[in-house]
Amino acid sequence: MPYVNIRVAGTLSKDQKRNICKGVTDVISKESGKPPEAILIFIDEVEHENIAKGGTLLTPPR
Amino acid sequence: MPYVNIRVAGTLSKDQKRNICKGVTDVISKESGKPPEAILIFIDEVEHENIAKGGTLLTPPR
Amino acid sequence: MPYVNIRVAGTLSKDQKRNICKGVTDVISKESGKPPEAILIFIDEVEHENIAKGGTLLTPPR
Amino acid sequence: MPYVNIRVAGTLSKDQKRNICKGVTDVISKESGKPPEAILIFIDEVEHENIAKGGTLLTPPR
Amino acid sequence: MPYVNIRVAGTLSKDQKRNICKGVTDVISKESGKPPEAILIFIDEVEHENIAKGGTLLTPPR
Amino acid sequence: MPYVNIRVAGTLSKDQKRNICKGVTDVISKESGKPPEAILIFIDEVEHENIAKGGTLLTPPR
Repeated sequence: MPYVNIRVAGTLSKDQKRNICKGVTDVISKESGKPPEAILIFIDEVEHENIAKGGTLLTPPR
Repeated sequence: MPYVNIRVAGTLSKDQKRNICKGVTDVISKESGKPPEAILIFIDEVEHENIAKGGTLLTPPR
Repeated sequence: MPYVNIRVAGTLSKDQKRNICKGVTDVISKESGKPPEAILIFIDEVEHENIAKGGTLLTPPR
Repeated sequence: MPYVNIRVAGTLSKDQKRNICKGVTDVISKESGKPPEAILIFIDEVEHENIAKGGTLLTPPR
Repeated sequence: MPYVNIRVAGTLSKDQKRNICKGVTDVISKESGKPPEAILIFIDEVEHENIAKGGTLLTPPR
Repeated sequence: MPYVNIRVAGTLSKDQKRNICKGVTDVISKESGKPPEAILIFIDEVEHENIAKGGTLLTPPR
């Protein structure tokens, strides 16, 4: 019953989400032996100013 | 000091949130013996296209 | 496809887990209209010394 | 490789986010001995009506 | 700065963890265009009795 | 009602946990104006082999 949470800075296109979810599910299913249907993925698209690295807020790419 | 995170696809009405939080708090308080005031719940309403099951993005209900 | 994460201080008996998961699933299913089978719950039992409230670590009950 | 998630009710100004991330990174780096660059923080700004305490939804401050 | 959390029922071997982290990082890097070094993954191995589906605790495979 | 989750590789001493929780609570309380008592922190100590950066599992320091 794997649960996966992917948090990214900024947004993804629907195609990117589709490909990431397909690819991540394939990898985890193949390696863990769990059926793909059991794998649940949540993507969080987080604004750059809500993420910090090294104590500094990220800035969005221009 | 129970912390609960509930992630749902799509949105909930304020009444649904109210009833879910009341009901979940009652269940956990009764079973664990912790006072209701100690129970903190966060609800995340997540877009269908940000959730995948079996490697496929959810589609919103029509 | 609701996902629920419940984090508690200390441990729960298997009966407490069973009753909490049954009760929480019932509440969310009834209020949200999602089938119970779609509801996935993860319980995290966290040591008291890994939780702080008001800046002070919890102490386990004697 | 510390990961920190801070969830608050309502919104924060960019200055509040900047100061919180700077301060939290300093504290964790100093105490754990990890370099600041290794510390990743995600802030979630959550609507009051999506948070409950004691089974009751929060109300936003007027 | 993608952050990934993978929660599985039971345990994984070190090889399974290695392959899952390699594969998931490759997929996300390729699709999102972020460099692999920016991708941080945390795996949580959760006991079966701490996970419920449909309101019923999982039972470990024999 | 801020909720904070801090995930670190390896373990922390009780003094490190105490100082981190005190310091993080002070920073967030001061910047956000929320009373310290409202701030709840959970620390997760995660084994190195359950964390990956750049697709490679961390190795514990010798």
